[in-house]
Amino acid sequence: MPYFDAASAAPLHPVAREALLASLDEGWADPARLYREGRRGRLLLDAAREAAAEAVGCRPDELVFTPSGTQAVHTGVAGALAGRRRTGRRLLHSAVEHSSVLHAAEAHAAAGGTVAELAVDRTGRVAAGDVAAALTPDTALVALQSANHEVGTEQPVEEVAELCQEAGVPLLVDAAQSLAWGPVPGAWSLLAASAHKWGGPPGVGVLAVRKGTRFAPQGPRDERESGRSAGFENIPAVVAAAAALRALRSGPGTDTEAARLRELVDRIRTRLPELVPDVEVVGDPVRRLPHLVTFSCLYVDGETLLHELDRAGFSVSSGSSCTSSTLTPSHVLRAMGVLSEGNVRVSLPYGTAEADVERFLEVLPGVVRSVRERLGVAAEAPVAAPGSAPREPSAAVAEEPAGAAAEEPEGVVVDALGRRCPIPVIELAKTIGQVPVGGTVTVLSDDEAARQDIPAWCGMRDQEYVGERAAERGAAYVVRRRV
Amino acid sequence: MPYFDAASAAPLHPVAREALLASLDEGWADPARLYREGRRGRLLLDAAREAAAEAVGCRPDELVFTPSGTQAVHTGVAGALAGRRRTGRRLLHSAVEHSSVLHAAEAHAAAGGTVAELAVDRTGRVAAGDVAAALTPDTALVALQSANHEVGTEQPVEEVAELCQEAGVPLLVDAAQSLAWGPVPGAWSLLAASAHKWGGPPGVGVLAVRKGTRFAPQGPRDERESGRSAGFENIPAVVAAAAALRALRSGPGTDTEAARLRELVDRIRTRLPELVPDVEVVGDPVRRLPHLVTFSCLYVDGETLLHELDRAGFSVSSGSSCTSSTLTPSHVLRAMGVLSEGNVRVSLPYGTAEADVERFLEVLPGVVRSVRERLGVAAEAPVAAPGSAPREPSAAVAEEPAGAAAEEPEGVVVDALGRRCPIPVIELAKTIGQVPVGGTVTVLSDDEAARQDIPAWCGMRDQEYVGERAAERGAAYVVRRRV
Repeated sequence: MPYFDAASAAPLHPVAREALLASLDEGWADPARLYREGRRGRLLLDAAREAAAEAVGCRPDELVFTPSGTQAVHTGVAGALAGRRRTGRRLLHSAVEHSSVLHAAEAHAAAGGTVAELAVDRTGRVAAGDVAAALTPDTALVALQSANHEVGTEQPVEEVAELCQEAGVPLLVDAAQSLAWGPVPGAWSLLAASAHKWGGPPGVGVLAVRKGTRFAPQGPRDERESGRSAGFENIPAVVAAAAALRALRSGPGTDTEAARLRELVDRIRTRLPELVPDVEVVGDPVRRLPHLVTFSCLYVDGETLLHELDRAGFSVSSGSSCTSSTLTPSHVLRAMGVLSEGNVRVSLPYGTAEADVERFLEVLPGVVRSVRERLGVAAEAPVAAPGSAPREPSAAVAEEPAGAAAEEPEGVVVDALGRRCPIPVIELAKTIGQVPVGGTVTVLSDDEAARQDIPAWCGMRDQEYVGERAAERGAAYVVRRRV
Repeated sequence: MPYFDAASAAPLHPVAREALLASLDEGWADPARLYREGRRGRLLLDAAREAAAEAVGCRPDELVFTPSGTQAVHTGVAGALAGRRRTGRRLLHSAVEHSSVLHAAEAHAAAGGTVAELAVDRTGRVAAGDVAAALTPDTALVALQSANHEVGTEQPVEEVAELCQEAGVPLLVDAAQSLAWGPVPGAWSLLAASAHKWGGPPGVGVLAVRKGTRFAPQGPRDERESGRSAGFENIPAVVAAAAALRALRSGPGTDTEAARLRELVDRIRTRLPELVPDVEVVGDPVRRLPHLVTFSCLYVDGETLLHELDRAGFSVSSGSSCTSSTLTPSHVLRAMGVLSEGNVRVSLPYGTAEADVERFLEVLPGVVRSVRERLGVAAEAPVAAPGSAPREPSAAVAEEPAGAAAEEPEGVVVDALGRRCPIPVIELAKTIGQVPVGGTVTVLSDDEAARQDIPAWCGMRDQEYVGERAAERGAAYVVRRRV
């Protein structure tokens, strides 16, 4: 049963398992105590810290363990901002950061700080030049991930670190997705990561704060971990996490494995568009994590797609809004301006069998086809012929009443209010054939995904996206038929 | 090699170990995911929550897991205070709470809140009547531990909970030390605990917030654990923690074990004063944790005592200032007004062999004697004969110069400036015989422990503690010879 969601959590590495077992018996006591059990724990903790620091590329006294990657980010952002309060209170981060960074930024804004977001291109990448332009004198901290967690695109961290260093602004790198594959190069000031992403156990994050970085830990003080992470040390888990990271980095075949997974991902990227109609593979094809690829399928409900893939034995995740409880699609896909419906992220764990990837490519087309059929979309011809009536269940289609859109008098209006992704796009696709070339379809929708997916559909289908207008409920999205 | 510091951390319970191993393979995936690995994790997490809630005595949806007991306390205090901000900003806690509560209180005060401390009696117990008197209309939260972590004294939690309920003020109970032995009775509103104290793995705390309690989580938001504990769930550890708690509570022999340890502790409490001269056993002899006893030895350096006990194979901890880096003795012993020098806490883990306790009682007298001898104190006669000169190394003793203390002209001054605990008390003991009954000895000391240990010595030695005066450096402690 292939598990293809390593970017969420990787199965425990065998070396981590072994180290965990050994240190359950040796590392349970309080390392602050002077008796033998405590001293033994302290030795284990020190050794784990040295191993982790070596893998991160910092000094052991610059690194603390936290209970999670999320807490490493929260602590790092809050501590760095507080340390620079006199200089300014502006936090600059990319639009595609992990939610832990976004939530730390929200908390900063709620406390009176200011937050600025850096846009990304269609591959999800920040332009270093944009960072340079945004480095105002009151900027206290820049946060940039090493590689994106949803689409795999690598960020220009080394270049940005240099710009930040020149400007005297610290850079915090969220390295959660990339640390398994190598250290983050460059003169970053803070780095956060999460052990369960690299095959360590849950319960371990890493926060490195390089010497010379102003840092003022927030929250109630605690003497553990240099005052930067409150609570009793989780030594068995920390030992296991460090052992797994060391094994990945210096074990035999590490480079080969990255290259092998990169090739498997290339295979998915190349063959998917040949196998599945109306699919968009997103993210940078080259400057990317070795093991991760994301694609979106038009006219597909992400939740059903995941469910069907699960039934077929594949565990993957999705950034579609229809799979989450938030009603908003992934902020990463939105920032990139790409399709969010029918979104699938495949992230291969170490040692993924080639045969499993091949089987995924065999199974996926049929799964997508069946989901589309259930939604009333024919596999090869989702756009209905001119004049054909919309099928049930569907949204109401009507000639636009005079006055509702005086500037588009020739149009057709699709009322998709109350319908969730992917229905508004499906109705648009069915209706576009009913208007002449040059005519418009206006989709009324209160589904947040429509704002993103209707323009994305236009790009994929070579239709013209005219724009969005306010409507009584939701918004009106206007599309002009071009082909 | 007997480990007698269960109150710091208990060795992993065999049931916890087994559960941890099993759930490392079953519970590593993200429980928020819909695929089978995620669903499996969710089931494990839900079952662990149910088991923990049953042991705590709350509903499963009232309980979240945190990465540590410390974080459970920090989160609980901050969330409860924020939830009641409109009512008031006053936090009331006992003077003997765990440092995690005190640090949360400091953070509250630093953010503009007010904090009031409840005094304890000589056993370390809060009087419920004091709580009633202190429940002002602007009190937002009361924090009271179920039992003290240093001396084992149980607090009148049930009574205080009732008073709080009548006043409409929530009560947070830090149950870290007692939860292994039974649920905390009464109408408390919030409860915090820590799994590694009951034989669960490190990395797991518990926070229960009863329905109807106003609670506003602080810090960056996170969707995990009902928004009350940020970061990826540590399912294997949580499952192990819940399994250990259930095993302790409902396993065969639990009640017997508590009674057996209680008897062993009684044995220590009774026999110590017979075996070791000048020892003070502290804490409530009856209303106490079954497994914990604390005592202090006059004229003994706590660090050396711990070191010698460690050499003899016994792992214990101490609240003496000379064993820590803070230079201040335990705030618990200070609040109780008892001796802090030569302090030893013995906390027996489940299954402690009776023979080990007997051996401890055999070994301790010799260890104390040897430490005293090294400090120049004769085992049976620490008070020097009148007129005998102080031995080297010692503090300077001089007739008090006229004018320095006009109200005590007949006195002798001991200059113990720059000398650390237990030297000031040893010098006092050596000097008291040099003054006539009714005469005084004034000890000059800049050691924080002297403020506590000189009055405690007077109580133990039936001498009169006159009081403290300001001095050029440190303070001057005046003692009148009574016997």
